[in-house]
Amino acid sequence: MTRQSSVPQADAILLAAGGAQAELYASLLRARFGAQRVRVWPHAGEPLSDIGYACLWNAPHGLPARCPHLKAIFNLGAGADHLLADPELPGVPIVRAVHRDLSMRVTEYVALHVLMFHRRQRRYDEQQRAAVWQAHAQPGAGEVAVGIMGLGHIGQHAAGVLRALGFRVAGWSRTPKRVPGIDVHHGAGGLDAFLAHTEILVCLLPATPQTEGLLNLALLRKLRRDGAAGGACLINAGRGRVQVDADIIAALDEGALAGAALDVFPVEPLPADSPLWRHPRVTVTPHNAGDIAPEILIEEVARQIARCERGLPLEYTIDRARGY
Amino acid sequence: MTRQSSVPQADAILLAAGGAQAELYASLLRARFGAQRVRVWPHAGEPLSDIGYACLWNAPHGLPARCPHLKAIFNLGAGADHLLADPELPGVPIVRAVHRDLSMRVTEYVALHVLMFHRRQRRYDEQQRAAVWQAHAQPGAGEVAVGIMGLGHIGQHAAGVLRALGFRVAGWSRTPKRVPGIDVHHGAGGLDAFLAHTEILVCLLPATPQTEGLLNLALLRKLRRDGAAGGACLINAGRGRVQVDADIIAALDEGALAGAALDVFPVEPLPADSPLWRHPRVTVTPHNAGDIAPEILIEEVARQIARCERGLPLEYTIDRARGY
Repeated sequence: MTRQSSVPQADAILLAAGGAQAELYASLLRARFGAQRVRVWPHAGEPLSDIGYACLWNAPHGLPARCPHLKAIFNLGAGADHLLADPELPGVPIVRAVHRDLSMRVTEYVALHVLMFHRRQRRYDEQQRAAVWQAHAQPGAGEVAVGIMGLGHIGQHAAGVLRALGFRVAGWSRTPKRVPGIDVHHGAGGLDAFLAHTEILVCLLPATPQTEGLLNLALLRKLRRDGAAGGACLINAGRGRVQVDADIIAALDEGALAGAALDVFPVEPLPADSPLWRHPRVTVTPHNAGDIAPEILIEEVARQIARCERGLPLEYTIDRARGY
Repeated sequence: MTRQSSVPQADAILLAAGGAQAELYASLLRARFGAQRVRVWPHAGEPLSDIGYACLWNAPHGLPARCPHLKAIFNLGAGADHLLADPELPGVPIVRAVHRDLSMRVTEYVALHVLMFHRRQRRYDEQQRAAVWQAHAQPGAGEVAVGIMGLGHIGQHAAGVLRALGFRVAGWSRTPKRVPGIDVHHGAGGLDAFLAHTEILVCLLPATPQTEGLLNLALLRKLRRDGAAGGACLINAGRGRVQVDADIIAALDEGALAGAALDVFPVEPLPADSPLWRHPRVTVTPHNAGDIAPEILIEEVARQIARCERGLPLEYTIDRARGY
């Protein structure tokens, strides 16, 4: 019997998560904290006055406000924009999903798609369909400039692995940052120089009022397209609202972009009639770049709740002013 | 004027290279050593008695034997099997193409195809063609066992990058080896345990009488197929004669293999009627995994000739007994 389940007056834990993993999250929380301490929306019952912690992912707005004794919210994913858009959101600490495993998953995705562009995989796919044996000039990774927008835990981890693969890596962040071995640009003033240098653009930015629609035609036209990569490419594994789908299509069609790999979209699931599905130089994935094991996420929630119960401050809390 | 071109009695350099890069190799050698010192087959003239060094790639057998004063042969690629099959090959040192850039190129290829299997890219490609938005369970790289056959410079470099990506990496080599952080099996006695553990098999072996046909149905059936990778996969970026094409098709069709990425084939170019071109779970590339810049290769040849002329021993020479 765990310590928690032997203390019936302990704060209850609310789970409100959309998506295929909801049942698994519930089982994991029950296994960790005891079934009587876990309440699963929409069958959570009322009142919610014993709820001390809420684990939320795409939960209905207004739900946290109905928990008068809430101490903390755990966001079960990397992007907190849906949660922060709740007009009734209580002023409690919000903990972001930050975990080495999450960084590693997104890095796998980023490395895969950077390498697919770099090694001309779609061109070889096309040749294979026609049984054409022809090698094309192939620069080394050391000649290719990758630029990462967003240098949080995930961006810095991806930068390190891309450097191990040999790429020239630069970064851009909202505020000045130092990241060993990479040239970091920052702020609105540093954006054009960053883009002019970047051939493969990797976007890992959060969705905030400042980043919404940032990946538009004007920005994409500023990427370097005459470098060793053989054209500019975009990888978005951040948030969909940062990109303008129609502008990505326009950039591909006018030649500003040679390819795009998109894991996120302003509207998800991506509507079946979106031209992105059928564009020959676009790779679409179903927002799974950062999917991590629910076991790991719930273990991290439990670790932080234990900190809280010992009177220690929560880690990785969101700064509401900056929006992530 | 370079030192070499001011010494007309210096050993001449023979270039005999098949393929698209032959003209570029000739220009680079002339720029480096002076035009009068470089002789390009088949217009090399006779006799070849002033030839001291030969740079060869898929050159005709018997050609080196016609150079009575040959001091060394430079093999302009990673695999020396064609050269070593020359029955009249003189007993001079043969220098392999070993360069950090070559290791990095092959590692790019290996990392790309390991990640494509790991992240189920072909499944998402298929879903994209049908505009299907569906994420599948995705283990982390740390749950997936990659096994590398061949732990020379290239294999060790690839192992390091795969570890940085988070994969569990093991290796197999002919003789016992220690590679930091990876579990190394060796010899015929260590092969079955290595295969039983391996889900994604990366072959970087040279073609020798011992490795010819090694990647056959019996071997492929020994790979682990019930692990986190969701099936066993083969990547061959070594030499084509190590694999049996028909056995790879059979392994795919019976389920021993879930996928294959092949850069090399027993017959190259891969014949247009090979079923490998059209198999939905096979990726074919035109033997370009290790293509490196001719500039880098010729610079390395020049560095080694300079060593030779200073009386220093040549580096990276081939052991004829073991065949690589």
